[in-house]
Amino acid sequence: MPPFFGELETIHFEGRESQKPLAYRWYDPNHVVLGKPLSEHLRFAIAYWHSLAMNGSDPFGAPTLNRPWMTRSDAMEGAREKADAAFELFRVLDLPFYTFHDRDIAPEGADLKESLKNFQAMVEYLAKKMEGSKAKLLWGTANLFSHPRFMSGAATNPDPDVFAYSATTVKHCMDATKQLGGSNYVLWGGREGYETLLNTDMGRELNHLGRFLNLVVEYKHKIGFDGQILIEPKPKEPTAHQYDFDTATVYGFLKKHGLEGEVKVNLEANHALLAGHSFEHEIATAASLNILGSLDVNRGDPLLGWDTDQFPNDLQAMTLALYQVILGGGIGKGGLNFDAKIRRQSIEPEDLVHAHVGAVDLCARAFLNAAALVEAGELKAAVAERYAGWDKPEAKAMLDGSLTLEQISEKTLANGVNPAPRSGKQERLENLLNRRLF
Amino acid sequence: MPPFFGELETIHFEGRESQKPLAYRWYDPNHVVLGKPLSEHLRFAIAYWHSLAMNGSDPFGAPTLNRPWMTRSDAMEGAREKADAAFELFRVLDLPFYTFHDRDIAPEGADLKESLKNFQAMVEYLAKKMEGSKAKLLWGTANLFSHPRFMSGAATNPDPDVFAYSATTVKHCMDATKQLGGSNYVLWGGREGYETLLNTDMGRELNHLGRFLNLVVEYKHKIGFDGQILIEPKPKEPTAHQYDFDTATVYGFLKKHGLEGEVKVNLEANHALLAGHSFEHEIATAASLNILGSLDVNRGDPLLGWDTDQFPNDLQAMTLALYQVILGGGIGKGGLNFDAKIRRQSIEPEDLVHAHVGAVDLCARAFLNAAALVEAGELKAAVAERYAGWDKPEAKAMLDGSLTLEQISEKTLANGVNPAPRSGKQERLENLLNRRLF
Amino acid sequence: MPPFFGELETIHFEGRESQKPLAYRWYDPNHVVLGKPLSEHLRFAIAYWHSLAMNGSDPFGAPTLNRPWMTRSDAMEGAREKADAAFELFRVLDLPFYTFHDRDIAPEGADLKESLKNFQAMVEYLAKKMEGSKAKLLWGTANLFSHPRFMSGAATNPDPDVFAYSATTVKHCMDATKQLGGSNYVLWGGREGYETLLNTDMGRELNHLGRFLNLVVEYKHKIGFDGQILIEPKPKEPTAHQYDFDTATVYGFLKKHGLEGEVKVNLEANHALLAGHSFEHEIATAASLNILGSLDVNRGDPLLGWDTDQFPNDLQAMTLALYQVILGGGIGKGGLNFDAKIRRQSIEPEDLVHAHVGAVDLCARAFLNAAALVEAGELKAAVAERYAGWDKPEAKAMLDGSLTLEQISEKTLANGVNPAPRSGKQERLENLLNRRLF
Amino acid sequence: MPPFFGELETIHFEGRESQKPLAYRWYDPNHVVLGKPLSEHLRFAIAYWHSLAMNGSDPFGAPTLNRPWMTRSDAMEGAREKADAAFELFRVLDLPFYTFHDRDIAPEGADLKESLKNFQAMVEYLAKKMEGSKAKLLWGTANLFSHPRFMSGAATNPDPDVFAYSATTVKHCMDATKQLGGSNYVLWGGREGYETLLNTDMGRELNHLGRFLNLVVEYKHKIGFDGQILIEPKPKEPTAHQYDFDTATVYGFLKKHGLEGEVKVNLEANHALLAGHSFEHEIATAASLNILGSLDVNRGDPLLGWDTDQFPNDLQAMTLALYQVILGGGIGKGGLNFDAKIRRQSIEPEDLVHAHVGAVDLCARAFLNAAALVEAGELKAAVAERYAGWDKPEAKAMLDGSLTLEQISEKTLANGVNPAPRSGKQERLENLLNRRLF
Repeated sequence: MPPFFGELETIHFEGRESQKPLAYRWYDPNHVVLGKPLSEHLRFAIAYWHSLAMNGSDPFGAPTLNRPWMTRSDAMEGAREKADAAFELFRVLDLPFYTFHDRDIAPEGADLKESLKNFQAMVEYLAKKMEGSKAKLLWGTANLFSHPRFMSGAATNPDPDVFAYSATTVKHCMDATKQLGGSNYVLWGGREGYETLLNTDMGRELNHLGRFLNLVVEYKHKIGFDGQILIEPKPKEPTAHQYDFDTATVYGFLKKHGLEGEVKVNLEANHALLAGHSFEHEIATAASLNILGSLDVNRGDPLLGWDTDQFPNDLQAMTLALYQVILGGGIGKGGLNFDAKIRRQSIEPEDLVHAHVGAVDLCARAFLNAAALVEAGELKAAVAERYAGWDKPEAKAMLDGSLTLEQISEKTLANGVNPAPRSGKQERLENLLNRRLF
Repeated sequence: MPPFFGELETIHFEGRESQKPLAYRWYDPNHVVLGKPLSEHLRFAIAYWHSLAMNGSDPFGAPTLNRPWMTRSDAMEGAREKADAAFELFRVLDLPFYTFHDRDIAPEGADLKESLKNFQAMVEYLAKKMEGSKAKLLWGTANLFSHPRFMSGAATNPDPDVFAYSATTVKHCMDATKQLGGSNYVLWGGREGYETLLNTDMGRELNHLGRFLNLVVEYKHKIGFDGQILIEPKPKEPTAHQYDFDTATVYGFLKKHGLEGEVKVNLEANHALLAGHSFEHEIATAASLNILGSLDVNRGDPLLGWDTDQFPNDLQAMTLALYQVILGGGIGKGGLNFDAKIRRQSIEPEDLVHAHVGAVDLCARAFLNAAALVEAGELKAAVAERYAGWDKPEAKAMLDGSLTLEQISEKTLANGVNPAPRSGKQERLENLLNRRLF
Repeated sequence: MPPFFGELETIHFEGRESQKPLAYRWYDPNHVVLGKPLSEHLRFAIAYWHSLAMNGSDPFGAPTLNRPWMTRSDAMEGAREKADAAFELFRVLDLPFYTFHDRDIAPEGADLKESLKNFQAMVEYLAKKMEGSKAKLLWGTANLFSHPRFMSGAATNPDPDVFAYSATTVKHCMDATKQLGGSNYVLWGGREGYETLLNTDMGRELNHLGRFLNLVVEYKHKIGFDGQILIEPKPKEPTAHQYDFDTATVYGFLKKHGLEGEVKVNLEANHALLAGHSFEHEIATAASLNILGSLDVNRGDPLLGWDTDQFPNDLQAMTLALYQVILGGGIGKGGLNFDAKIRRQSIEPEDLVHAHVGAVDLCARAFLNAAALVEAGELKAAVAERYAGWDKPEAKAMLDGSLTLEQISEKTLANGVNPAPRSGKQERLENLLNRRLF
Repeated sequence: MPPFFGELETIHFEGRESQKPLAYRWYDPNHVVLGKPLSEHLRFAIAYWHSLAMNGSDPFGAPTLNRPWMTRSDAMEGAREKADAAFELFRVLDLPFYTFHDRDIAPEGADLKESLKNFQAMVEYLAKKMEGSKAKLLWGTANLFSHPRFMSGAATNPDPDVFAYSATTVKHCMDATKQLGGSNYVLWGGREGYETLLNTDMGRELNHLGRFLNLVVEYKHKIGFDGQILIEPKPKEPTAHQYDFDTATVYGFLKKHGLEGEVKVNLEANHALLAGHSFEHEIATAASLNILGSLDVNRGDPLLGWDTDQFPNDLQAMTLALYQVILGGGIGKGGLNFDAKIRRQSIEPEDLVHAHVGAVDLCARAFLNAAALVEAGELKAAVAERYAGWDKPEAKAMLDGSLTLEQISEKTLANGVNPAPRSGKQERLENLLNRRLF
């Protein structure tokens, strides 16, 4: 059988004037900016989950993306065919990383042992494929949400057997991630939450989740996995309420369980939206709490209340997000994972390639914009000027513990303090941003 | 001038069969349930803010509630007249508590000193009024959001003078709250947040906020105020993003600044809604984190995106909320504050009384429902049964640190664990709830 | 094989004091109120779609409700088994009506002819089952959204072949509905809309939809179907934008195509919510436009952005909805269809029965509340009093065409008109409502 | 007193390379594209309402924009000073149009007569100012929502005196609009709706509104006003539900009252968002219904649930909107009104100018993008190709009435129609769009 994307040529940077639909106009991986090539700043990853495993079904509709590997009677044969297609796609897009769930790469078996056997076989298969490919593993993760056994939670399931089953699965996924040289291991708690408090002991479930995460961190150290452990926040969907609501919630949870130095967040744009935040808010929050780990770049539709997981295409929003990434010190071992799916009607294989090309270029141009903003320094200077009053000793004294509330009160009254409002200059700064964009 | 609500008789419990519009049908303050009279469980408070100080204006409309005290040329005379009306209202409604912001009870002066002088004079006035009244102070708070000086924040203002001004104000509000025997002191950070990250140093502002809160807690101990310090979370409005987004966010913030044992939350139903949560979610979260402090009972309109602050009138929602309060150990030193306003068209003084009467009865009946659910024990039993597997030693071993991830994995595989899904029985439990309601 | 719900006894009205979980406490079908038995006011229907055909899958999870008929290798055998289970369920619940999509009752065939043959065979099978059952057909409809051929629309598909295919399907579904004595024929345009305007000619698609609906109406008259033709509005999901957004939108569409006297609406509570409306708003709007047809009673979760289609359990909301139904003249040939699904975790057959029992009782009690409100007349009187000024001749003259704008202006100035605001008394009326509820 | 914006130089087009913050880089009014100068395509207008009359207050905060004219003890003197400032602003921004409410330009008087006298005096004052200015009037309107008399509606008020008062006001505003050469007259029904159905007769109110609008249209013809009559849809805020919810709702209302040929819509981006639509959706809908009148260009914040009315700054969204305007035949007698306000913290006069400059350039660049898309024709060709099947006679026969449903069914079955899904190519088209943007 011919490779699924085999007809397509590898896509290259061809510069801004290129009229070819399948060329990179902005993403020159070797272009050095802020001291590093663009490829190292962005660390793009292709998601097995959306790009190879999704079939186009939705709550009211049957699958539309009938990829050949989805219907093989021998599921392991299908898995290998899918892997072949995946590496063809990696080759076509010429991006440095990929990501997977265990279930994306290998089929469920008759029991847990067989499932792990299938998984391990496919890990070996991927390891071999990687030898002949430039693609590296950004992160691995376990799908602890699709099978009915997880319908009431994985680590937070009322049934301890599901906790045990989940722990076992994660253990093997961590092993595999290490084996394949992954930079991170991700946990997304899509079923860690509740449908109704009427049947839920939330405090108990949260404690179980805390213990589960500690088990993971302890195991990481035991096996010497030097990647990051990441939690991916999402507030809802599929569950009515998920415990890892957003970055701030995850931070409190980590603090409670003593893990704030061990675990970071994998932030997704669409999940931020569902939580009532902008993507840049989540990034800035994580950076300020020192838990910024990695990014799932996609976009949601603010008019729709579910995870549309569309490919990113909003230059302003992505520029703002990546500006915060740069301010926060960069993405480190993380990367930009295209956790995005083509629309249900985009049934041709080429649609998937177009989607990636547009998104890659968008992120590249957004990063260049953000870097230019940093280099120009105007925004930073405006912010510094706004807070300049705090550089004075009498202001610092209010923060460093040398003054009590009473003493501040006395000084304030003695000095007749009467603060005058100063413009926040929002529109000027917005113009300044937009002038980098067009 | 005759007292504003002076024509109205004091409202009493008259029982379920009463047809009088201005009578309590469910709220019998002396009715003992779960070992205490209803009045002690609920600790109702009337809010100066909405009930005496609001004028019916909205973003597109001028004031409609032209209370006489709002237009006195001598502002202090207006403040005294307002206090007289307030205590008449307390008398009419016969509820045990009230709450205020500094600015609700006393007018802004020409400078901070005069503002504090006005405030102190009105505190004395209230102290005197309280001698002839049953009304006690549930909590006091400072309005650090209405005046233009706070437009860019109070404790998080880029201008340290505003921090100083705010600290001074809070110091005096805490003094007054102690003087009036208040049970709690509340902080609501309506301007602690940002409009745009383009002009904001979020990390810096959060640190300032943390220091501010520590100043408050240190002062509380210094003056020996034995009430609770409470933060009132709200995610947005008026600010585009407020730092005290919800309970989980506040918890992380308290943990970061070492204050989780010192500060609790004052939860409002409408704020929960704006954050994407149910009221009972926020209560259960706070209870599970041991920071449940007090409640602002009102309701929002899920079809509208702003704080409508309507009087509560949804029996099911309130029953669920108070059920979580009971499970969480009760409201303690907190109470149920009617942080609710009559509609802009409800311009007659009597409308305000009707609103309270309906809300009081709603909460009373909801508490009786919740208590009956607790006493019947069916919900609790259903939950206990659902988690029963965790009572077994082999399950506990996964939580208590005696097993590693690897060991759990080995045991799981050795035992051939294959968990079968079990019904969550949501509809049955919902029916069980509703059968208490009608 | 034993009938699926065969173990369960038929559920009866047992009165308010009944403690049996599976008994009707409020729904006494023979209870006469407002001149008719409750069964004729409410005309409850059980939905094949959610109750027999749904499998518990969601966008992140596999099926959990593994009903035996879903996995038969002979699909027609499965369809018959499903029908047997359906009629057992109808018997257990003892409700008068049911509803179906063509695809709910019969499997897709190899081509359209076989699909229609399967469908016709199952229609005969149902006709036979109905002979031994009290269940009647409230409405039939065609599933023009699940199969990939409809992914870009049915009547609004860019491909005329899909229009033709859809027309053919609807023709046969109308025939079947007539054959089975259905009271209504429903059209839900789940794919009639767009994902992006970039690839869409909206004006053209709307014209096609208008023609399609005219074809349906003409055919109705041709075959002498005396039921109602109903459109079911929904604003989004699965499509990003659906044309039948809400009642007001459908009305404009009907007017444009001259069909406002021919077609009515089938309103769903959860769809109203997704459109930003309350259910009672949609009902009142439809009634005021004379297009109120039938109801899908369920509930959404205002904190979630998708169709949760939960069974209704909010007494206040349902009372308000049914109050508007009564004011609007009743549900006529329509009914209350339980377009509601049990939660994904509610995997036991009995869960489905509990869900219906709770919902039936809720609607019954809500109707009794609404009827009591109507009979007491207080709300109606309050409204009449509010508009009483319009009964005067000089007011009527402004409406009946006897005065021009200029003349009104002259009179107004001459009379020195200076309207004084009057209270809308919202809280009093809300209390009045709640006193019927508890 | 010096003119308020008098220090500022007139802003000019200086080209893309300009580094001046207060220069137009894209808006060259004389640049000809699609056969007309940009100024005629865009017809920018400055809004008195937001730019001269707003004071920076919000529901939790006092005014921050203390413009000198707001505090004059002689209100008419303040009004003239405001007008002077307005025309300075028009001069500085060098844009062709402005818009006003009666109450923006003239203060409320002691009674209606004095209010009209004030208004007429200011109309004369404006007429004189216009002689020395390039500014023309895009539209006038009446503020029938701010004063308490309108709290329960204007044309839909339960009190007929308010209807009369409103009619009188509109009559004079129409006269003034004609006198000042306005191109349009706008009606925004901010209080035409309801807070609760419990006190509302919706059908009656809608009929009153229909009659009111007919009075307006009749008067337009009587006085020979040759501008457009426009309704501005908004779904909610300030009212819980407003009758002019969105374009589709307004269309149905116009059809019902026979006004679809007489009245068009003035569409606002933020109102579209509040109704759950994109701006381009509302524009395309209006164009397809032939009622596209004019635009209020601003932006909302999809994370906030109220009208933030920010200046537009999203190039992609504006490009999509203006692309639909061009497809719909252009804006005609309408224009692009900056119904947008600076942030509450943007207290310096210059902030207002920055806001306009950024927005003007955004719209200009967006229009150039949209025009380029039209000229390139790729999108149009993609759409045409998608619907090409409908150009065949057998397809047309299904639309033109020559085939019945039955005949279509017969043909479909005879031909064995079996439509194959075709890609919607959404991602390719999105890339095509974005390549015009960056």
